Amino acid sequence: MRTEYFRFAGAFELESGETLAPVTVAYETYGILNETRSNAILILHALSGDAHAAGFHEGDAGAGWWDEMIGPGKAFDTGRYFIICSNVLGGCRGTTGPSSINPASGRRFDLDFPLITISDIVRIQERLIDHLGIDRLLAVAGGSMGGMQGLEWLARRPERLGSAILIATAARHSPQQIAFNEVGRQAIMADPLWREGRYDGRPPAKGLAVARMIGHITYMSESSMAGKFGRRVGDRGRSHRFSAGFEVEEYLHHKGRRFVERFDANSYLYLTHALDTYDLGRGRDLADALRGVSARVLLLAFKSDWLYPAAQSREIARACKRAGIDATYCEIDSSWGHDAFLLEIAEQSHLIRHFLNRVVPARDGKGGGA
Amino acid sequence: MRTEYFRFAGAFELESGETLAPVTVAYETYGILNETRSNAILILHALSGDAHAAGFHEGDAGAGWWDEMIGPGKAFDTGRYFIICSNVLGGCRGTTGPSSINPASGRRFDLDFPLITISDIVRIQERLIDHLGIDRLLAVAGGSMGGMQGLEWLARRPERLGSAILIATAARHSPQQIAFNEVGRQAIMADPLWREGRYDGRPPAKGLAVARMIGHITYMSESSMAGKFGRRVGDRGRSHRFSAGFEVEEYLHHKGRRFVERFDANSYLYLTHALDTYDLGRGRDLADALRGVSARVLLLAFKSDWLYPAAQSREIARACKRAGIDATYCEIDSSWGHDAFLLEIAEQSHLIRHFLNRVVPARDGKGGGA
Repeated sequence: MRTEYFRFAGAFELESGETLAPVTVAYETYGILNETRSNAILILHALSGDAHAAGFHEGDAGAGWWDEMIGPGKAFDTGRYFIICSNVLGGCRGTTGPSSINPASGRRFDLDFPLITISDIVRIQERLIDHLGIDRLLAVAGGSMGGMQGLEWLARRPERLGSAILIATAARHSPQQIAFNEVGRQAIMADPLWREGRYDGRPPAKGLAVARMIGHITYMSESSMAGKFGRRVGDRGRSHRFSAGFEVEEYLHHKGRRFVERFDANSYLYLTHALDTYDLGRGRDLADALRGVSARVLLLAFKSDWLYPAAQSREIARACKRAGIDATYCEIDSSWGHDAFLLEIAEQSHLIRHFLNRVVPARDGKGGGA
Repeated sequence: MRTEYFRFAGAFELESGETLAPVTVAYETYGILNETRSNAILILHALSGDAHAAGFHEGDAGAGWWDEMIGPGKAFDTGRYFIICSNVLGGCRGTTGPSSINPASGRRFDLDFPLITISDIVRIQERLIDHLGIDRLLAVAGGSMGGMQGLEWLARRPERLGSAILIATAARHSPQQIAFNEVGRQAIMADPLWREGRYDGRPPAKGLAVARMIGHITYMSESSMAGKFGRRVGDRGRSHRFSAGFEVEEYLHHKGRRFVERFDANSYLYLTHALDTYDLGRGRDLADALRGVSARVLLLAFKSDWLYPAAQSREIARACKRAGIDATYCEIDSSWGHDAFLLEIAEQSHLIRHFLNRVVPARDGKGGGA
């Protein structure tokens, strides 16, 4: 597997009215686009994800972030479907974002990067789809922030979608979700190395690690933490005077350190801002925002997910029904919390495989990859 | 109301084997101790509380932290009971803690302060009770960290207690509770002003504020946040580029700023460490730790409290039953989350008043304050 790059040379107008040019989009594809170009599925990643959803990069020890879901015979079967995944606008994994070079100054954008929205993220994905010569996607699919992008696709470009698979997501953030993001942002901005975003080379590692540790607590459930760590003390001893050396503490430290190596603090600020300000209904009834959509929808939620509680998915499901959309809602009895969308492979695979079989038009019924 | 100070001049030996001398304990009392000295109730405060539980200090705009529960005719009726509340050891509100002057050096202890435990906190409270000439308390009562102290009183000095009122507490922290505290500690220690605890005069305000903001999210429930803030935007505008100015963000900023004015960052580290390492059973069955206790127990928990979930109180209630203790467990249908122990006044008052009536010995049945 290799990441490829699409360069959108035109002026890309953002929802705010500001313009970016050029925009580079990092993406990967898996499987083969069929002759009728009707078997493409766009995978949408979450806050800390990237374009590398499946397979291995040369020299990598680990596979892509959704590798168990994407591949021959898997839920997103690369023997049948042409799978695309791109890094989001504002990210830091190949697509243009605050750590990219600003052509106007020759330096990193940092805070000169414009504020972006979930809609902007989706509209540059649309340019990528154009570039790949695809008129209509068989499906968009993603969890968490990926599910929000899927919702935006559904509301904004229903005519280009056969279906949307929306996992553990929300039509808008609750104040609790906003609060967790805001504390993460405060932790980053409190780090003196942040320097109003101008930290090139010396990032605010401690602040970003704290933000990530908060995130990881919210991604797990109380019971999955209890099962994984209990009150066991690790064998590395106390990492500081006020730690008892609990394994859960070591886990958080490890996750914080790892994140700092691969993620940009400013991207964290831009993307959480896009998440918090997203509102599918924009004040209107959600059903009104979805009226006229003919794409089928599959909504998955997890009982133990308290960051994106199942009630938020049920609200979307109800709005779909009221808008006359063919929508299926499944609540999976998982104990993994929000992380379940990365971990509950068997159950999700079963539901998604079945759903996609219903979506594939009869003429491609035997598999689009042939 | 005035805070008083008790100075324990002897060597106070800690659970760790280290010694502190002298120890000052800040405390307040409300009501009158009766002739038989049998109407005393010790109130135990939570992480950020202090000795000022009720009434007003001269010039103060606000009353003590549990003023709605303590006073004439209230749940803890000062017409009948003699109420005592002291600041915990390791705190920063008058009782000896890391911000106190170390007699050995003439400077603040800071990290030279020894690690303390919930048991140490309780044993210095016992010295205060001795000093006040009280052999036996009618009750100890507290929520959250206060409930842990009540549990420790129950297990350690049952012969000196008529009863214990334990609210929204746990016999030991779950990994999720430890995780939230650890992220708060990391935020404090990540602040360069922390300087390994030697910040006299220039505290790590940003780190402490982040820790407090995390705390406040966990003290509320998702639904109480939704009810209080929704997605409303405040009228002060955006406080930074990545804020949409949501009211919930302003609330957290405000709470963070306020906390820094009154709380010591090192105390936060010492007390959360005491919380995380507390384990009533110490590896044994909880019922074994409570065997032989004749005091009555009232356990209160709140349905929407996800920081100290009701299941943790039910576990204590079951252990009490197995240990043969006369224990009552009530789960209050509140939407306020963990904060409910400060807010659900009517329901708690009703239950506590009724419970205390059963505890008061017949000879004092007409009210101990007479």
